[in-house]
Amino acid sequence: MTNLLWQKPGVAVDAKIQTFLAGDDVILDREFFLHDIQASTAHAEGLQHIGILSADELAALKRELATLADDFRSGAFVLDEQYEDCHSAIEARLTERLGDAGRKIHTGRSRNDQILVATRLWLKEKLERVAQISTEVAKVALDRAAAEQMQPLPGYTHIQRAVVSSAGMWWAGWAEAFIDNAIRARDTRALIDTNPLGTAAGYGVNLPLDREHTTAALDFARMQISPIYAQLSRGKFELAALEALGGATLDLRRIAWDLSLFTTGEFAFVALPAQYTTGSSIMPNKRNPDVIELMRATHASVAAARTEIEQLLSLPSGYQRDLQNSKGAIVHGFGRGLAALELLPALLSNLDWRDDHIRAAIDSGMYATDVAVEAAVAGVPFRDAYKAAAEAADTAGQGRTPEGSLAARVSPGAAADLRLDELRVRWEALQD
Amino acid sequence: MTNLLWQKPGVAVDAKIQTFLAGDDVILDREFFLHDIQASTAHAEGLQHIGILSADELAALKRELATLADDFRSGAFVLDEQYEDCHSAIEARLTERLGDAGRKIHTGRSRNDQILVATRLWLKEKLERVAQISTEVAKVALDRAAAEQMQPLPGYTHIQRAVVSSAGMWWAGWAEAFIDNAIRARDTRALIDTNPLGTAAGYGVNLPLDREHTTAALDFARMQISPIYAQLSRGKFELAALEALGGATLDLRRIAWDLSLFTTGEFAFVALPAQYTTGSSIMPNKRNPDVIELMRATHASVAAARTEIEQLLSLPSGYQRDLQNSKGAIVHGFGRGLAALELLPALLSNLDWRDDHIRAAIDSGMYATDVAVEAAVAGVPFRDAYKAAAEAADTAGQGRTPEGSLAARVSPGAAADLRLDELRVRWEALQD
Amino acid sequence: MTNLLWQKPGVAVDAKIQTFLAGDDVILDREFFLHDIQASTAHAEGLQHIGILSADELAALKRELATLADDFRSGAFVLDEQYEDCHSAIEARLTERLGDAGRKIHTGRSRNDQILVATRLWLKEKLERVAQISTEVAKVALDRAAAEQMQPLPGYTHIQRAVVSSAGMWWAGWAEAFIDNAIRARDTRALIDTNPLGTAAGYGVNLPLDREHTTAALDFARMQISPIYAQLSRGKFELAALEALGGATLDLRRIAWDLSLFTTGEFAFVALPAQYTTGSSIMPNKRNPDVIELMRATHASVAAARTEIEQLLSLPSGYQRDLQNSKGAIVHGFGRGLAALELLPALLSNLDWRDDHIRAAIDSGMYATDVAVEAAVAGVPFRDAYKAAAEAADTAGQGRTPEGSLAARVSPGAAADLRLDELRVRWEALQD
Amino acid sequence: MTNLLWQKPGVAVDAKIQTFLAGDDVILDREFFLHDIQASTAHAEGLQHIGILSADELAALKRELATLADDFRSGAFVLDEQYEDCHSAIEARLTERLGDAGRKIHTGRSRNDQILVATRLWLKEKLERVAQISTEVAKVALDRAAAEQMQPLPGYTHIQRAVVSSAGMWWAGWAEAFIDNAIRARDTRALIDTNPLGTAAGYGVNLPLDREHTTAALDFARMQISPIYAQLSRGKFELAALEALGGATLDLRRIAWDLSLFTTGEFAFVALPAQYTTGSSIMPNKRNPDVIELMRATHASVAAARTEIEQLLSLPSGYQRDLQNSKGAIVHGFGRGLAALELLPALLSNLDWRDDHIRAAIDSGMYATDVAVEAAVAGVPFRDAYKAAAEAADTAGQGRTPEGSLAARVSPGAAADLRLDELRVRWEALQD
Repeated sequence: MTNLLWQKPGVAVDAKIQTFLAGDDVILDREFFLHDIQASTAHAEGLQHIGILSADELAALKRELATLADDFRSGAFVLDEQYEDCHSAIEARLTERLGDAGRKIHTGRSRNDQILVATRLWLKEKLERVAQISTEVAKVALDRAAAEQMQPLPGYTHIQRAVVSSAGMWWAGWAEAFIDNAIRARDTRALIDTNPLGTAAGYGVNLPLDREHTTAALDFARMQISPIYAQLSRGKFELAALEALGGATLDLRRIAWDLSLFTTGEFAFVALPAQYTTGSSIMPNKRNPDVIELMRATHASVAAARTEIEQLLSLPSGYQRDLQNSKGAIVHGFGRGLAALELLPALLSNLDWRDDHIRAAIDSGMYATDVAVEAAVAGVPFRDAYKAAAEAADTAGQGRTPEGSLAARVSPGAAADLRLDELRVRWEALQD
Repeated sequence: MTNLLWQKPGVAVDAKIQTFLAGDDVILDREFFLHDIQASTAHAEGLQHIGILSADELAALKRELATLADDFRSGAFVLDEQYEDCHSAIEARLTERLGDAGRKIHTGRSRNDQILVATRLWLKEKLERVAQISTEVAKVALDRAAAEQMQPLPGYTHIQRAVVSSAGMWWAGWAEAFIDNAIRARDTRALIDTNPLGTAAGYGVNLPLDREHTTAALDFARMQISPIYAQLSRGKFELAALEALGGATLDLRRIAWDLSLFTTGEFAFVALPAQYTTGSSIMPNKRNPDVIELMRATHASVAAARTEIEQLLSLPSGYQRDLQNSKGAIVHGFGRGLAALELLPALLSNLDWRDDHIRAAIDSGMYATDVAVEAAVAGVPFRDAYKAAAEAADTAGQGRTPEGSLAARVSPGAAADLRLDELRVRWEALQD
Repeated sequence: MTNLLWQKPGVAVDAKIQTFLAGDDVILDREFFLHDIQASTAHAEGLQHIGILSADELAALKRELATLADDFRSGAFVLDEQYEDCHSAIEARLTERLGDAGRKIHTGRSRNDQILVATRLWLKEKLERVAQISTEVAKVALDRAAAEQMQPLPGYTHIQRAVVSSAGMWWAGWAEAFIDNAIRARDTRALIDTNPLGTAAGYGVNLPLDREHTTAALDFARMQISPIYAQLSRGKFELAALEALGGATLDLRRIAWDLSLFTTGEFAFVALPAQYTTGSSIMPNKRNPDVIELMRATHASVAAARTEIEQLLSLPSGYQRDLQNSKGAIVHGFGRGLAALELLPALLSNLDWRDDHIRAAIDSGMYATDVAVEAAVAGVPFRDAYKAAAEAADTAGQGRTPEGSLAARVSPGAAADLRLDELRVRWEALQD
Repeated sequence: MTNLLWQKPGVAVDAKIQTFLAGDDVILDREFFLHDIQASTAHAEGLQHIGILSADELAALKRELATLADDFRSGAFVLDEQYEDCHSAIEARLTERLGDAGRKIHTGRSRNDQILVATRLWLKEKLERVAQISTEVAKVALDRAAAEQMQPLPGYTHIQRAVVSSAGMWWAGWAEAFIDNAIRARDTRALIDTNPLGTAAGYGVNLPLDREHTTAALDFARMQISPIYAQLSRGKFELAALEALGGATLDLRRIAWDLSLFTTGEFAFVALPAQYTTGSSIMPNKRNPDVIELMRATHASVAAARTEIEQLLSLPSGYQRDLQNSKGAIVHGFGRGLAALELLPALLSNLDWRDDHIRAAIDSGMYATDVAVEAAVAGVPFRDAYKAAAEAADTAGQGRTPEGSLAARVSPGAAADLRLDELRVRWEALQD
């Protein structure tokens, strides 16, 4: 590393210590490089508004920042270990190419608000992606719910056969779940949609920075007013974002569990296309649903990212270097989380029910609740009806069919009254 | 335990196993007892609407439920280990007093949706309380920010003296933080404000339950349509609620850290009233800020509650008994979290600054950033101004005062432009 | 609360704050009351050795401590909210009954080392119990492994049928696992088997305390020499103990998962005695394996206890009040963990295999690996043999039987060479 | 990726899915590549012993494995995305260079036991390194304790001044802590020092594998007998290893907190060499102790690694693909944990006390405990002596000095009786 902005003459630098301090920071910064350029451009505009930069200097800076962004995207510029971080790298390039204009861009700014604004923009993008994929998942689920309304499926509690259920109910459940996941991702995006740029090292600066401009230019909903709070939100907002993602990956873990069971030889309710499976290095007979298992494992990585940030965030107010490690955590958590979610819509579209196995798993005891409720409707107090049905549980189902049970399931939201229209109204609201 | 609804004749019950199954469930259910009565009342009304209960039966049930609630509040009825859980206890009492009407109330209902709706009502209350206390904290902070705008305070990064800051900035930071905490608690409340009652064991029921009625009667914003999703939301909503609480307790951890440092003999910036301190069993000289330390420790308990639920929620869809343990987790997490937050407004109102120690901690190097920025305004490229100021850091502050530094801190949100009016507008919006 | 040892005249006490400070501390202290009496007795002996107490005073204190222990066990003395904690309660009783001798017992001691030694003794007991139950589990597993060596069982990877396995192999796996769990519990017990009594508030005291005596009297393996380290070990040792417990509950989670699957209608490999199951409030047909599910959920509670301590332990050295919350955490974690483990030996003894369902789940593809390896023995390179077997996977098993496959499974540890003798040697070593 | 061992003709491979399945697995496998070669060599020897390989084939395989190891170390062979994982890469190379001998090496082995043995060897190395560094830290601490026995230091509880302490006590505390950390790392190493190679996919194999040989050749203390347990130990042993590391990083977090406070302007007890500090991008006056802060943050990364594995380990027995993610977790956790610990011995050697600031922080109230204990020795019951000293706390210290207080601190382990000889005996035992 050759470029330490703050290096003072005569102070020895120890290579081992520098390596420790650097960590994998500059590599992680590749995620945030373009966001920093975007924010640096807005900052430069603000500086020109208050007379720190001339119009020419601004024009030069904007041109060079745009070029650097292009170079980064094309690979002509590589952010690597020769730099301390993306912030120093950008300033160094501007100074190298533009001289004094480059030396001016950091006026009124600290790396503290620079990384805050870059990660904030990044988190907003990621949360929007969570909302989008959740919406896609809900769409697949709504469509399949409508198409498979009366496809029987055993309903389980305690993974024990309970009552007859339907594919329609199963799909509608995931639809409502992922509509909520999209709403939560958007709520969280709104919560963090606040501009920290212009708060400097956490105490503001003796310059009338044009924060209204940068807020508008970077498309933030509002300004994060307090520099103290800007620093307090480091980690706090990362956690909120991971928690919103976690809502979705938690549901993913449960849908993956369902599919893991449904694809066993014993349940065998679901057929998966071969591309979702892998083989074994030793057992010639195996086709394993690895995709489903890695989806199931995904929430653990999101949880790990939360842990990493939450554990280090036992600190007084103000910036502390500990917070650097929050970067790797969000890259890991969102990386794993989104990679798994991205595959979910297609997976759900592609799975097929194996009706014969499904029907074989519906036993006659699963009609006992229907029987008890029917007796209750006929006037028998439910608790008595329950006892009678319990005694006759084995014979209760005689002559009954899954279709009959489902057709009578008329409570709102149940098989005979799925209320997909209401769910569709909620789904449509996500399109605004 | 004498009352097992589901007990079948001839099935042996093992005392040790029953104790394990019961855990502390029935004791925890004291938290949810009144919510269950409220929901049972709405459920009974719904049953009358569809002809399962007569008007007289409904009247008797409502009267008896109200009496039971009174008895519970007064201590005349004690929920203890003789019952399996609050649900069985209520049904048993209704049956004992009303006969068949009591035996009818469970028609179309499962303990699965019963506990869901009771905890949902409970969580809504708790989140509202988080929002209220957060609003109170923000009020204290806004008022003190206005009153102490120019009270100097050292500004730290890395817990190292950085630049001059002010009590006004410090308070404004917490104000903005807790306004956000209130918003998040309300957002989360809105997310879970959805009625699961009427979803039975997770697959609906063969009765046209009047879920519109129960939704309105229990003041839910909407119906949780899918019975599958109702079950999926067990744990998921608990986590979301704990995460919203955790946003506030995380800030509490950081404010407690500040106060823990500020009350040391070395910083000595803050004086705490004696009632916030305790003594030692061996050291006669001690006055310890235990309240602050237990506040700091609080987030760990909220995090533990999250862990307990998140770790057990690696399950297929549908109800699993594992979820029973989520009850203790939310009682513990919200119990600890709210107990600590409740004390925060008064603590913040009561702390005093020790101006002499504060001023002694502001050294001349803390003006170096001001100097560098002034040079930048005068046309010196910032990076050059920075280097010059670094070389003269020890002398840079000569003739400067904290007041002078703060008066010049004009960037939006900084000491000279706190924008409390904008924060007050956001705060007012919480009153709606 | 009436008894604040450290209360100074003229200092107001705020009831709300006292309630917050107290938390559920004194109730939790019931767990540690007898351990404190044990340690107080040893401490008093030590004080007599150095002349602080006379022989008569010591005799009186020992008699009264023994009486108090009896009163506590019988319920004649109840530790409740009128006391600040168990330490104050004991000192108050001694003072009330014995006057000056009671006022002398706290000489050279702080509540800091008092709670350290009491929890240390408690943790040692709990770890020993983990070791004992683990040993019992291993015994059941070893015995059943021997008895059911050739009982076929499908072997799964990815919960997909892989190769033929046996009950013998399954049991031997749990045997080796729980032998290791017992070893780890004992290792951890040895790690924390170190006496903190006599370190006072974390800095020792100006008295030549007879720490050799208390170390021997309390049956510690060694003295925890450094008072600073004694304080550092608060929380650290609790975590180590919970981690050792967690090793066992993690295995419990996996065995519970196996049994949860094996008791489904779809696998149906295992029959559980009725006392391990419960019914449903609405579904008359249900028998649910709740015991297994609560066992599966147990590790989450142990993990939560870890989280609670780990999160609050971001602190400088020396005692901090935050650590008070570690008490509730270990009581919760070990309470839940041991309650579940205690039931495991009997559960394992009582479960029965359903051979017909087991055999039905062994399909012919499960012999493909055998076929490939046989070809490899005959000289076909394994990778070629694998490919050939893959192509013929459906027919590979013709004429083969589970018994044949198991009889040929001769790799050390596999079905035909379980090496139970070696495991028994390791098990015997636990008896020392 | 071109090399899927298990790929079957006619099965489509979807690039997006393959990317998801691969994750960063092959990059992570660089950590385990040499361990896999070591284990593959032992496995090949075992195969020759039972006649699967000829002596010539074995010689060829060993030669080629050694060459591949050299190529890997030199960079001539790069493990990258063209391979599925390190296991396939090694087999592919052997097959390419040696033909049938390469095609034979996987006989009786699965990737399941292959990755188990490679990570086991890796974990053993890492735990040994934890033990070594802990021993080095203890050495520095023991030496400085001896040298600075009477250097005063304020002793804190609640970060409030409590009693006079000494650098000797502070160092001795860390010495005892890190001796324990070394012991725990070695205990954990012994717990996992058990050979899983030869357990194949978790059910053994129909070959009399020479597991005694591989156990000895790979320097394992014993054989992991049960193939079922071998699979159960995946994740479980990783957790145990991370927990042992976590014991050390938890202490590191607390020592870093001490140093973070001691290097503030307000405490100012410690001077750090400049190479341990960094500057600010905006504030010319700053020298920040970033190394200390990143050390403090380290435990969070170890905790995150634990979370990642623990959360995914809610699974039935047998291999599941979820476990793949445990690899990244241990690389991250040990990577961060060891990087920080490696710097600790030199940091501790290099820090200097600032005696003037230290003495200024010792106020007269800190002698009050000495006074009370002296009165107790003179016959005043301690509780009365305590009250008297409390009333006179401000004047109690008159005429007293830190040196006097320390000289009288004679309880075993305290300043005047540090018992470094006993600690040195324990330290010496680590050298065996």
